[in-house]
Amino acid sequence: MSEYKTFSADEAMAFADKHSELFGDHSKLTAKEFGDGNLNLVFRVENDKGTSLIVKQALPYARCVGESWPLTTDRARIEAEVLKMHHRFCPGHTVEVRYFDPVACAILMEDLKAYRILRTELNAGKKFNHLAPQMAKYLANTLFYTSDFVLSSEHKKAEVARFLNPELCLITEDLFFTDPYCNHERNNIEPAILEKAKTLWHDEALKAEVAALKADFLSKPQALLHGDLHSGSIFIDEENCKVIDAEFGFYGPIGFDVGSLLGNLLLNYIACPGLHQAEDAAEQQAYLLQQAEQLWQHFSQTFTELMSRETQDPALDNSLYQRRFLQQVFSDAIGYAGCELIRRTVGLAHVADLDSISDAGKRADCQRLALKLGRELIMQRGELSNISQLQTLVRYQHTS
Amino acid sequence: MSEYKTFSADEAMAFADKHSELFGDHSKLTAKEFGDGNLNLVFRVENDKGTSLIVKQALPYARCVGESWPLTTDRARIEAEVLKMHHRFCPGHTVEVRYFDPVACAILMEDLKAYRILRTELNAGKKFNHLAPQMAKYLANTLFYTSDFVLSSEHKKAEVARFLNPELCLITEDLFFTDPYCNHERNNIEPAILEKAKTLWHDEALKAEVAALKADFLSKPQALLHGDLHSGSIFIDEENCKVIDAEFGFYGPIGFDVGSLLGNLLLNYIACPGLHQAEDAAEQQAYLLQQAEQLWQHFSQTFTELMSRETQDPALDNSLYQRRFLQQVFSDAIGYAGCELIRRTVGLAHVADLDSISDAGKRADCQRLALKLGRELIMQRGELSNISQLQTLVRYQHTS
Repeated sequence: MSEYKTFSADEAMAFADKHSELFGDHSKLTAKEFGDGNLNLVFRVENDKGTSLIVKQALPYARCVGESWPLTTDRARIEAEVLKMHHRFCPGHTVEVRYFDPVACAILMEDLKAYRILRTELNAGKKFNHLAPQMAKYLANTLFYTSDFVLSSEHKKAEVARFLNPELCLITEDLFFTDPYCNHERNNIEPAILEKAKTLWHDEALKAEVAALKADFLSKPQALLHGDLHSGSIFIDEENCKVIDAEFGFYGPIGFDVGSLLGNLLLNYIACPGLHQAEDAAEQQAYLLQQAEQLWQHFSQTFTELMSRETQDPALDNSLYQRRFLQQVFSDAIGYAGCELIRRTVGLAHVADLDSISDAGKRADCQRLALKLGRELIMQRGELSNISQLQTLVRYQHTS
Repeated sequence: MSEYKTFSADEAMAFADKHSELFGDHSKLTAKEFGDGNLNLVFRVENDKGTSLIVKQALPYARCVGESWPLTTDRARIEAEVLKMHHRFCPGHTVEVRYFDPVACAILMEDLKAYRILRTELNAGKKFNHLAPQMAKYLANTLFYTSDFVLSSEHKKAEVARFLNPELCLITEDLFFTDPYCNHERNNIEPAILEKAKTLWHDEALKAEVAALKADFLSKPQALLHGDLHSGSIFIDEENCKVIDAEFGFYGPIGFDVGSLLGNLLLNYIACPGLHQAEDAAEQQAYLLQQAEQLWQHFSQTFTELMSRETQDPALDNSLYQRRFLQQVFSDAIGYAGCELIRRTVGLAHVADLDSISDAGKRADCQRLALKLGRELIMQRGELSNISQLQTLVRYQHTS
């Protein structure tokens, strides 16, 4: 294959067959496109014994908008390389890439068909005790081992250049940090909360904090991030969870990945009263706050151990500095979690947690709470010194 | 020319003649190598009317050490491109590059033969009132116009990659932030201050702060820095000053360039009692503190005006954020100035300001003061809120 063209199902099947030993007799293969994403074709290729792999091919445009929004297919390289790197440092919780073809912009990868999307499960009121510890392990290992603590500065600089990812970063820069804070046509605001949303546009104190978070997103290449770690990028079953969809990966602030996931747990927390009956909602909220706490506790414990044991740069091998570094990651994470709450409520890309609340009044209540809590997280992120203070803040916002 | 070879004087002359219209009859040209640097050949090519240009060619090794310390000649590209970029934004105070040859790794540039090196002049007790305002203009313009305030994120990311400069950054990372704080063989410590120097190696509180400054040097690509802005990189005459020697340029924290220059003014301040008679020393010190004040005042005023008028990113166009940003640059600059004081006293590369003090006792006194003030600047950089507090701190250290 010498130039890019989009795969038919048969071509995806041939691609999978050619680059895997898994299938045996290829006459028994089937392939089916089932992507519901906006940017890619996704095929499941399967033999008659149920063995299957996924073929994910980047489209040269954003599918939801059509060919009018061109988008680099280089993101397939970014996704494949980020996943391979993260798999290297956390194989248990990163989807496995089997093969990447840079011309077809296609990735052959492990099929997680026994898993389900975390967001769907949380919205259905499911609880998984392994979620927080496993995702904490994923975050601590992938972020630590791609950071200045480990990589030589020469290697790190080369990695920063290899993962610049300007086009996809721009999407985040706009949707996360710019659009929600002005009257932008891309915003998606329900009429019931329009007045509340408008207050964001003139909240100069809040916008100053968001500017600082955006400046760090632009210019703080601490580690190789997943870059889009919401609860739709996590697959889960009864024992394990695995991260997918790393096309937004780049070198950025460690708190962004941690905060994205924390923000998604909090979005689901906020949505509970709209999604479940009162008693179930209270139980689910208790579960989610406990997971948020565990996520940070396990992450900070593992990251601290790694810093203490594996730091290669002698100048960074200082426990006082390392404690402060982690405190700053916490503060950053709280801030980015707050941004996630706000942008998922009034920005272009909503989440089903809130949007699927059928009662319009409850939905608006939850959306207002998301904006309120999002603002508090951003404004108070420097004052919160530990995760239990975050829990208190969340409970207080919820009841006040 | 198809491959790199070092120039003879005749080859440098031919190179200058070929790439400039300046000289007329080339039979009248002379060329003389006069570089006293460690990394480059430097030729002055001149005609019989006194018109001259400089040819600077990067050697593939550090000259002072010999061919055993290889060093990329790509630094000539970095130097030429940084100087061209800085000249674009501050033509009055950046040496002009006329031509760059990537194969010969040679730069043809303006000859500043009517200028003198700032360090030499300061050591001789000269005073220039235009120094601070002009260097503030240079810093504010070159750093602002290469920052996230102006560049699109896509353009900025490409620039970061174009100026990675890993080999020369590593020199700074080691000499500035690592060596002085441990018993490193590269250190150059006079016996008289060895005990004082040793306290640095076990000062965990100080090392935690230096770690944070190093982490920012590694991972805070705010703007295209000069990267080596000491008083040997500045040429000055009675009316003007111009910056040379940008081979350490890269995208880093804005405070590093500001702090390097501030640190060099303070090094000279500290050296005054060893270099001059008492009355002259007091006058020179008053001059230097006034220049340090003006450097920050003019820099912050110009940078503030530029942020207010020229910011392109709407999310960063917030005056509260901009004030805090500048406050952080101030704090960073004080910290890097402190590092400069320490590393120039006990690290590999000393400065003539201190080393040329002939009285051994006075020299040791000045060196001890440099270490003491350096530590205070690093430790207190977050508490100092304006430049007059810095002046007070300096005076206090000096007299206490």
